[in-house]
Amino acid sequence: MTAIDQKMVEQLKALLEPDASSDALFELVDELQPYDLSLLMQELSRDQKIFLLQSIPPAIAAETLEHLEPLEQYRHLSNLNHNTAVDILNHLSSDNIVQLFAALHPRQTERLISFLEPEFQAKVRDLLSFPENSAGSLASVDYIAARQGWTAEQTLEHLRKVGERAEVYKYIYVLDSLGELTGVVSLRNLIMADPLTPVEEIMTTNLITIDAETDQEEAAQMLSRYDLEAMPVVSDSGRMVGIITIDDILDIIEEEATEDIHLLGGSQPLDTPYLQSGILSVFRKRILWLSLLFVAGAITSNILRHYEEVLGQMIALTFFIPLLIDTGGNAGAQTCTTVIRAMVLGDVGFKDFLKVIFREMHLGLALGAAMAAVGFAWSRLLQNPSNIAFTISATLVTLVTVSSTIGAAMPVIGKKLGLDPAVFSAPMITTVVDALGLIIYFQFARLIMGI
Amino acid sequence: MTAIDQKMVEQLKALLEPDASSDALFELVDELQPYDLSLLMQELSRDQKIFLLQSIPPAIAAETLEHLEPLEQYRHLSNLNHNTAVDILNHLSSDNIVQLFAALHPRQTERLISFLEPEFQAKVRDLLSFPENSAGSLASVDYIAARQGWTAEQTLEHLRKVGERAEVYKYIYVLDSLGELTGVVSLRNLIMADPLTPVEEIMTTNLITIDAETDQEEAAQMLSRYDLEAMPVVSDSGRMVGIITIDDILDIIEEEATEDIHLLGGSQPLDTPYLQSGILSVFRKRILWLSLLFVAGAITSNILRHYEEVLGQMIALTFFIPLLIDTGGNAGAQTCTTVIRAMVLGDVGFKDFLKVIFREMHLGLALGAAMAAVGFAWSRLLQNPSNIAFTISATLVTLVTVSSTIGAAMPVIGKKLGLDPAVFSAPMITTVVDALGLIIYFQFARLIMGI
Repeated sequence: MTAIDQKMVEQLKALLEPDASSDALFELVDELQPYDLSLLMQELSRDQKIFLLQSIPPAIAAETLEHLEPLEQYRHLSNLNHNTAVDILNHLSSDNIVQLFAALHPRQTERLISFLEPEFQAKVRDLLSFPENSAGSLASVDYIAARQGWTAEQTLEHLRKVGERAEVYKYIYVLDSLGELTGVVSLRNLIMADPLTPVEEIMTTNLITIDAETDQEEAAQMLSRYDLEAMPVVSDSGRMVGIITIDDILDIIEEEATEDIHLLGGSQPLDTPYLQSGILSVFRKRILWLSLLFVAGAITSNILRHYEEVLGQMIALTFFIPLLIDTGGNAGAQTCTTVIRAMVLGDVGFKDFLKVIFREMHLGLALGAAMAAVGFAWSRLLQNPSNIAFTISATLVTLVTVSSTIGAAMPVIGKKLGLDPAVFSAPMITTVVDALGLIIYFQFARLIMGI
Repeated sequence: MTAIDQKMVEQLKALLEPDASSDALFELVDELQPYDLSLLMQELSRDQKIFLLQSIPPAIAAETLEHLEPLEQYRHLSNLNHNTAVDILNHLSSDNIVQLFAALHPRQTERLISFLEPEFQAKVRDLLSFPENSAGSLASVDYIAARQGWTAEQTLEHLRKVGERAEVYKYIYVLDSLGELTGVVSLRNLIMADPLTPVEEIMTTNLITIDAETDQEEAAQMLSRYDLEAMPVVSDSGRMVGIITIDDILDIIEEEATEDIHLLGGSQPLDTPYLQSGILSVFRKRILWLSLLFVAGAITSNILRHYEEVLGQMIALTFFIPLLIDTGGNAGAQTCTTVIRAMVLGDVGFKDFLKVIFREMHLGLALGAAMAAVGFAWSRLLQNPSNIAFTISATLVTLVTVSSTIGAAMPVIGKKLGLDPAVFSAPMITTVVDALGLIIYFQFARLIMGI
């Protein structure tokens, strides 16, 4: 196990001096994991980075670069001499290459594609043709394929030859002469089979495949559900495009959760790690929502004008405004986050939507009744007249029920309309619920206190 | 690819009739994925479920049960006849068995442990001894181990013998006679090596291991960071306890994100999928926070009493209360969700905490200034006197700065105190910020309008 510290940074820097021993450098690099090396690299000067990448084996350099953001990868590749850059590029995993190319300007991509081995170029172009965030755009061509008609021995021989690039060894995909997927053999069965057995006899034809155009989120759900390590991606015509592996899925699941959490907190998601995001870009992502919610809130606040006369007669009513609208907002926030998460995890489907709304309505009624009791006790404790206490209780039970229902309905309706349900964040629900809360409050005040 | 529909349910039910053909049942089960079978099972009666589990091969029955919650697994196992139950239990993966046993009453666990093969019993007891949510409690003993001193051929021979249970084939772990991990061989190197090569010569000794007592969240971060498919878990004494695989990590990452999202929405996280959670348990998880926040909000609202005289002179000030406190709450929510997520993802470490707080303070100032401009324009548009517009602008710039700072500081301080930062959710920040918002507002009102 390794961990980065200042001592290692100094050690590495010393080994990058022109007169240092290259053996000692290799030894250090060999002991490190590529991820650790990528962290260490950030402490180096531009020249030191170039020297390091040109000195170490291209396979290790490639693995190290894979831990960096695409644009950083490109910057490093551009700084290197042509031969090293070509070498490293050809050692990058195919899904990394596709992600890198997708992030670049088409002209930059074209230049880099020409560095790839010809056979690989076509495959990469193929993967680049799929829409962003589709299963196809994530697929890797670094899988092991066997031809229908091969024996177990021929397949193992092929594996020994091409295995170095492969991302997954557990499954070997059997393709026909048109490149269509006909079956999968597990490596275990391959090793255990008699060398002369045709692969067709030991392969399973009961396949779970994913269409290349499918959204990556759905691909992630399938892989996680079926507990698979990799899943073949096929095109409309049935041709095998590549594989999606469980570690791609891991990244997607983290990304999607981050996106949802940011949206639920009422700001546009960040695309880069927190400390690497420019303060101006964070500002832009937040000011939009903040202003939108302000305008919505401003309209809400206008409701109070209509009750100026009620307020004038009974200033004490003002004291409860923040409390009541916050409670409504909290109940709405609880519901919407729960429902949205259940939708994202696939626990709730389209057919459950009415059920969910009814369930939350009942839950809201129960919570509202409980809060009404708390509210009554509290306002009597503060020696408010009982008509104020009744007004507050009546408002709470109504408002919490309405808020819970809205908190459930808004993401559900949004989803029906094709919107990301996480857009119906707590702040948004709060704003809607505030307006209702004020109306409910003052109507009850009029009714109960006869103002 | 399969998908569940009503037709399949009917087909399965027909095949479970006493006079149906068992061949046809096997054929159907063979075509289905265990996950799909677990979904279909939910549509069956108790007797049909028992009949199904007793009819199909125990390996498939075990894989199907693994898709259910632990307590459901136990219920099914208890309903089966003894021999079938023993058979299925011995086919469950070792990490599933540990999770199942950990969820049961110790007496139930003891009974089931006695069903296991003796050699396996000791390993399971070992895993059960680690604290909940530790790497050790997640570990699986279904890995392939080679003895130091074996040749490549001997190791492959062993793999053919024990491989059926293995979860991971990519790595073979080399242990010394004390059970201590000395190296790892990749299956590819094993296959490619000369059969007589000692494994010691082709193994790597540069290992990433994880301590059995480490928290599962940290284990997840390590595996994801280093892009590994599996990681060996070792005890204090260096003995190999098991492996953690990437699919365990997937579940943890989803669980943790769900937990954070629920906490950030201001309720205790659900432990079960949404529709399977009892309405009473959801009620309990929400009412706690709702009441807590109500009491905090009630104290906040009391601040307004101190400004009764100001309010009496200028009712118009009331109209802006919801707008201002919501904006403060929104700014705080944006900051705290972003900071908390960055902490969870490890983008922000202890050493960055002051940096984060300063950054958010500056960001808050910029956002506050922008919102002050919006607020000024808005209140002038509504033909409020300019002293009200100035009060609102001054409040906005101060409040948004303060809220952003608090939104960043609360999770950071919480983390220092050893609390889950997600507890400092948007609703909680909102409540704190409300109090400050009211004080700031009325102090500016007094100052600017001379009330």
